[in-house]
Amino acid sequence: MAQPNNKIDHVPEPTLRRLPWYLSVCRLLKSRGETYVSSTRLSKETNIVASQIAKDLSCVNIVGRTRVGYDIDNLLEVLENFLGFTTIHKAFLFGAGRLGKALLNDTGLKQFGLEVVAAFDTDPRIIGHSTAGIPIYHINDLEAKMRRYKVKIGILTVPIDNAQEVADKMVVWGIKAIWNFTPLRIRVPNDIVVQNTSLYAHLSLMFNRLDGMECANDE
Amino acid sequence: MAQPNNKIDHVPEPTLRRLPWYLSVCRLLKSRGETYVSSTRLSKETNIVASQIAKDLSCVNIVGRTRVGYDIDNLLEVLENFLGFTTIHKAFLFGAGRLGKALLNDTGLKQFGLEVVAAFDTDPRIIGHSTAGIPIYHINDLEAKMRRYKVKIGILTVPIDNAQEVADKMVVWGIKAIWNFTPLRIRVPNDIVVQNTSLYAHLSLMFNRLDGMECANDE
Repeated sequence: MAQPNNKIDHVPEPTLRRLPWYLSVCRLLKSRGETYVSSTRLSKETNIVASQIAKDLSCVNIVGRTRVGYDIDNLLEVLENFLGFTTIHKAFLFGAGRLGKALLNDTGLKQFGLEVVAAFDTDPRIIGHSTAGIPIYHINDLEAKMRRYKVKIGILTVPIDNAQEVADKMVVWGIKAIWNFTPLRIRVPNDIVVQNTSLYAHLSLMFNRLDGMECANDE
Repeated sequence: MAQPNNKIDHVPEPTLRRLPWYLSVCRLLKSRGETYVSSTRLSKETNIVASQIAKDLSCVNIVGRTRVGYDIDNLLEVLENFLGFTTIHKAFLFGAGRLGKALLNDTGLKQFGLEVVAAFDTDPRIIGHSTAGIPIYHINDLEAKMRRYKVKIGILTVPIDNAQEVADKMVVWGIKAIWNFTPLRIRVPNDIVVQNTSLYAHLSLMFNRLDGMECANDE
């Protein structure tokens, strides 16, 4: 399954988190017709010090050329490949409510390597229907659909009351990675990958910083 | 503007990131009719060690009672208030494309204290229309709308090519906090709060962990 570029050993997580930023800058510069980018320029665009950028890129075996910098096409190819955006990963979505439907409609995910092939819910009013061309099945059909689609990724967008129960079902039927959008910490076996993306947790961080900033300005 | 509970000094960011998890567990337990929760139970539900939970909650002046634990109603009230979910923060959304429209449709945000009152775009086909009852204006009308709505929060969901330019406009016209959904690091003055929520960065972290797990299992 893994691409040759994924064989790169143990990229530290902070580096992993920064790589998509460099990728975005490269995409932007390419769309403006540029062919090379210096680490100084990358630094200016990302607010990350140039030496850190050079270190991060060397983790994925990218080395810049003195004076010219990095070849943008090469950087794009290596980063997109390494970040998994060039391989389509199929996924099931669990919970086709507000947020779930929003994600089904977000065709941008496919550009980044994620294709949602089916959704699951328990609401009889939506089962048998589809959103953005993606069929919605009853959660009880999961076993059969897992056999048919051979999916490894599950997106969790159910209400918190069902989050753990649905996560348990995913694991039983063979899901290996859960993208958890609920604000609940789900418990899974050690060999299951969980990526938490809680919009509400981010929202509270922002409110808190904004209030702090205003208190500071009032003083 | 700040609530009394926001006066709590300097809660460390890791604690801030964990507080929404405790809140979610409390909501879940309350919906099941429970009135008290022990730190052991909170620990089991969140995978965070009990001593850390007690430390985190003491940061927001919550102390449990020996043997009974924490009063769930009290915990809910303090956490919701502290996290800013009980005050409605008005926001503008910039870029009513796929992801932007998805967020406009996500009425769940309002339950967590964020109300999007208007959206801005440059596409003549959608300007003058509305999504989920939220009007879409031309970005050139921002100055006038800022005077009318007195909004402090801007949600950035434009394509990366326009992200910096739109962020600059927000700052010029008085936005104080930017919730950045683009995968681009935007540059803003020091007194502006930026909260990055890049779905694609999270996606690549998940792909990477999943590939790593599969390599480990293959060995």
